[in-house]
Amino acid sequence: MSILRSATDPAWVEVALSDLDATLGDHAHCEKKAVATAVKLVADHPDHPVLVRRLARLAQEELTHFLAVLGELQRRGAQLPHDGGDPYVQALIKLIGGGGSVTTRLVDQLLVFALVEARSCERMLLLGERLPDARLRELYQRLAQSEAGHETLFVELAVELGGEAARARLAVLAEAEAGVVAALPLLPRMH
Amino acid sequence: MSILRSATDPAWVEVALSDLDATLGDHAHCEKKAVATAVKLVADHPDHPVLVRRLARLAQEELTHFLAVLGELQRRGAQLPHDGGDPYVQALIKLIGGGGSVTTRLVDQLLVFALVEARSCERMLLLGERLPDARLRELYQRLAQSEAGHETLFVELAVELGGEAARARLAVLAEAEAGVVAALPLLPRMH
Repeated sequence: MSILRSATDPAWVEVALSDLDATLGDHAHCEKKAVATAVKLVADHPDHPVLVRRLARLAQEELTHFLAVLGELQRRGAQLPHDGGDPYVQALIKLIGGGGSVTTRLVDQLLVFALVEARSCERMLLLGERLPDARLRELYQRLAQSEAGHETLFVELAVELGGEAARARLAVLAEAEAGVVAALPLLPRMH
Repeated sequence: MSILRSATDPAWVEVALSDLDATLGDHAHCEKKAVATAVKLVADHPDHPVLVRRLARLAQEELTHFLAVLGELQRRGAQLPHDGGDPYVQALIKLIGGGGSVTTRLVDQLLVFALVEARSCERMLLLGERLPDARLRELYQRLAQSEAGHETLFVELAVELGGEAARARLAVLAEAEAGVVAALPLLPRMH
């Protein structure tokens, strides 16, 4: 069961499909930023061998996704757009506690990234049902499975570091994430 | 033939082998930073489809190298150390021209990264000859081949964007790189 506290507005998928090049372009940038995030966590926490190894592998998978989505853009004769930023992720990052210990902050980061993966997974499943051609539907079903694995990985790492308190914190952050999603306009992008 | 204008001091390999855990740890961080650099170039230049695709693939290879070196550290009972920075790369980055067009700056960046890959390749070959066990020698011979491919890739991208002027600029930067290497102390690290 997903950690999300709200379902995406069913109208989102229509908006996403109405400008598929834009949605794919935004998705490619999401994957690219997921790589950068994982590498940054590795750089900041070299003393957590499990985190280092698992996030390096996650970064490899996200690069594979990036290349797959890039290939689909190319096939459609479209280019990677400029990355205009991601208000959804920016709003979630503001929820990360600044005070407390290094571990408390890291647990918050991991939980926020778990929520981003969960929301991405939910929306990829919607695309996997509704995309216009079988090839893209299959790709998004496959990507959704992988993102579900990343959601689980981030939660596991957070609970390993933060124990039961991490689960309680996840409930708080998941409520906040639902609020962030509800406040954002529906656009042809992943979030 | 390598683009380097100087050979590494033969004494370096003795120093590198004298504290192999430190050298491997530094090397792992080099691979991690190569991933971050490639992803940053992709983020900054989404309008160069060839650069985007080739650097995303390069980042995948660097992550594979990172995980391989990490595995060797673990096998030796050692951990990834904290990343104390890389004075060699920092000195080279200062050579990147700040003025001129976006393309001029990008060509300089690509040439500097080509030199870093070339120096890493040269040193991996030295390690591939001299490491104490066959397993590590084989790993470093394999990694050196891959880095040689990255050197070529960065030069090709620079020449594609900058034409013959890029080759002239490479000669200047390669001289400067040799100067930077000569001025650095020999330490148990890749550069």
